[in-house]
Amino acid sequence: MKNELTRVQIDVLERIRPSRGERERLHAVTQQVIAAAQSALASRNLRATVEVIGSAARDTWISADQDGNQDIDIFIGFDTSTSREDLERYGLEIGKEIGIEGYTIGFAEHPYVKARCGGFAIDVVPHYRIKNTHQILSAVDRTPFHQQFVAEHLDARHDEVRLLKQFLKGAGIYGAELRTKGFSGYLCELLVIKFGPFVNVLESIQDWKVGTCISLTSAHARNSFASPLVVIDPVDTNRNVAAAVSLDSFSIFLDSARSFLESPCIECFFPQPIPPLDVSAFRAIVKKRKTTVFGVKFDLPDLVDDIAYPQLERAHKGMLIALQRHGFSTLRGDIYYDQGEAVLLFEMLVSQLPAVKRHEGPPVDSKQHANKFKKKYVNNPVVLSGPYIGDGRYVVELRRKYLTLPEYVEAEFKNVRSSKAILSAMEKEFQILKDEELLYSDSMRLFLARYFDKTLSNCD
Amino acid sequence: MKNELTRVQIDVLERIRPSRGERERLHAVTQQVIAAAQSALASRNLRATVEVIGSAARDTWISADQDGNQDIDIFIGFDTSTSREDLERYGLEIGKEIGIEGYTIGFAEHPYVKARCGGFAIDVVPHYRIKNTHQILSAVDRTPFHQQFVAEHLDARHDEVRLLKQFLKGAGIYGAELRTKGFSGYLCELLVIKFGPFVNVLESIQDWKVGTCISLTSAHARNSFASPLVVIDPVDTNRNVAAAVSLDSFSIFLDSARSFLESPCIECFFPQPIPPLDVSAFRAIVKKRKTTVFGVKFDLPDLVDDIAYPQLERAHKGMLIALQRHGFSTLRGDIYYDQGEAVLLFEMLVSQLPAVKRHEGPPVDSKQHANKFKKKYVNNPVVLSGPYIGDGRYVVELRRKYLTLPEYVEAEFKNVRSSKAILSAMEKEFQILKDEELLYSDSMRLFLARYFDKTLSNCD
Repeated sequence: MKNELTRVQIDVLERIRPSRGERERLHAVTQQVIAAAQSALASRNLRATVEVIGSAARDTWISADQDGNQDIDIFIGFDTSTSREDLERYGLEIGKEIGIEGYTIGFAEHPYVKARCGGFAIDVVPHYRIKNTHQILSAVDRTPFHQQFVAEHLDARHDEVRLLKQFLKGAGIYGAELRTKGFSGYLCELLVIKFGPFVNVLESIQDWKVGTCISLTSAHARNSFASPLVVIDPVDTNRNVAAAVSLDSFSIFLDSARSFLESPCIECFFPQPIPPLDVSAFRAIVKKRKTTVFGVKFDLPDLVDDIAYPQLERAHKGMLIALQRHGFSTLRGDIYYDQGEAVLLFEMLVSQLPAVKRHEGPPVDSKQHANKFKKKYVNNPVVLSGPYIGDGRYVVELRRKYLTLPEYVEAEFKNVRSSKAILSAMEKEFQILKDEELLYSDSMRLFLARYFDKTLSNCD
Repeated sequence: MKNELTRVQIDVLERIRPSRGERERLHAVTQQVIAAAQSALASRNLRATVEVIGSAARDTWISADQDGNQDIDIFIGFDTSTSREDLERYGLEIGKEIGIEGYTIGFAEHPYVKARCGGFAIDVVPHYRIKNTHQILSAVDRTPFHQQFVAEHLDARHDEVRLLKQFLKGAGIYGAELRTKGFSGYLCELLVIKFGPFVNVLESIQDWKVGTCISLTSAHARNSFASPLVVIDPVDTNRNVAAAVSLDSFSIFLDSARSFLESPCIECFFPQPIPPLDVSAFRAIVKKRKTTVFGVKFDLPDLVDDIAYPQLERAHKGMLIALQRHGFSTLRGDIYYDQGEAVLLFEMLVSQLPAVKRHEGPPVDSKQHANKFKKKYVNNPVVLSGPYIGDGRYVVELRRKYLTLPEYVEAEFKNVRSSKAILSAMEKEFQILKDEELLYSDSMRLFLARYFDKTLSNCD
């Protein structure tokens, strides 16, 4: 077992550790970008620091063979006396000059330039140079402190961070973005600093309970964060580095760690790719499950993932609750979002409801309510049976208004808890696709394959 | 309204008050039966009293035109020194002699003779003559005291009792037997003694709450009976005369009283008969409701209603709970029982369940349970999806074993809470009938008509 554990890690590292050529290429581009930034500053007579920040600089990034080219983050540090307008304006100007192969404008807390240079994507991030994290003016001001902490404490464990990152990728929980709600690169680095080599991290975390609180410094670990996992930021004790980690990502981490320690295998890092679902495979699955799958499809143009996902989640949950309240029972569902195309997926246990539903009224011995209820329902065409008495209460059996999900959604989508953007997108146009109609693109065929295959990375 | 109220009562009384000819016929037979009983006693040298007891003697019975011939109860009162064996033996012997047109043996607390004489059914009831109700040896010993109390307190309100009885018949809640769980004749008499004329009874009871407790004497009304209605027996304060009244019968009484007082009509006493359901009417109803009706049919030979109904109710309820637990949802159901032929009816909201069901496991951070759950379900052919993680717990989607009610009942009826008699009847043979197959007899067609029509007597 011990040998197997070692062998798997060596195999994985061979695939994820950047090659000498890759390092040299990154180094060359980094130097070129720093020079371009410095020259742009000099030509404007601006005094600012230029630093490369992030896994590229910290030597914890994963080879481009597995990951595509690494992003490079260039931080331009201005004096705190600089106005915010100037800071943003200079950031954009310098970014555009760096982007000799082109650029796009991204939006986070503020607009910023994503420049292309030497085949790499360069995020150009203007920030304030501050003395300590109490003076933070913008979230990015904290990042250089992270860099410094990792540099001072990681020692030679860069490969251990790489293993942990790839392991989390394999489990689908790497990344703090709202689509994944997983573990950020910085959090991986802190876990290695705290618990030691990759395998020690897994051994330490496998017994965690929901609500676990970790501190790397003498700062008291107080879990006033109400997150499933709290990792106190060593450079800012008011911040939980694991704030993005959802209960499910937390749980998947525990489960994957236990599975891997029990039977280490390379598939935990590189799961077998699932083939997209074709029509005949889809039919075979539905025949087995005897469920009905509906997708509510609409366009959400121009929303970045971190904005779109929480809204889609709220809309999906709102719809689930509304469907439940109207008597529909759903096995589960999912959210598809790709470049502005959204599908809310619902797998229904019953494709068509009966036309009748039971509605309970007041107890008969509560005379005033009883009279009101009877007035309302006697000789009412919506009543199929009743009023009659059951367990001392009035009961009527009413005609159900909507028997299928499409009937309900088409008539009532405006009354379902959602977001403004989604509501206005749906008001423009939406489609309801059923079963095989959902296999309309390669991307959806893959999405549905994953939906039905839904199983933990299982190394047996 | 007042006039309408009076007119309706007059119309009803015309139909339910026995005619002079009917009274004379009953009187003649009664005298004949008493004479026969006395002669049978004399020929055996037995000293015992002979009394006619019940509504026939109390002049509160309903005309044979509405009710068929009235039963006559002849009570033969023996001294308390008589042994129980002798009491029973003499009762049977005398009963057989009275039954000059034949007899059958009935079973209550003890075997007794139902004799036929002059076109009437005569129950011959041997009992002990006791001084007061503290000395009761058998439930029937109390009955002569009831007779005496009613004779002393009813005054001239015999017709008011008739109206109340017919009103309760119209509402389907007359009779204390376990099929009806309603109001006995003696209880009707007590309500009239307590509250006065029929309309006063309705006015008094319409505001009753569940748990109402009534006493006609100075005896304290204590509701330690846990019945929806308690009426302390004036001849035996330990007894609740309304013990048989179910919550639903109680509620129907309140509801009917309010309806009638609001708009008095003869249909409250004599509801329109419902025509039996034919196939085309059945199809129209099911098309409207989109439900599926199943009946589990078996024979329960030789069980009297009061034995059969509680067992059938328990079996029906047990089956409902078991179906629910297995994911079937039922709108409602009913029990059919007629001369040993039993049908447990279930109206299903969904005729066939999906083949997949969600099964939730332990929280992931509970390592020991987690390992056990994963061991059980990983690579288990019963799993269609999973294990995966939802809200921090393991979840699997399992293949459902039974998709329809017949599949479930045929395989699992032995594991459903029922009674010994029903279980052994079903082990012998049972059938599951679906939808139109249930219309196999006139009696079932009527039963199903009532099942779907289920609506309170509504006088509008």
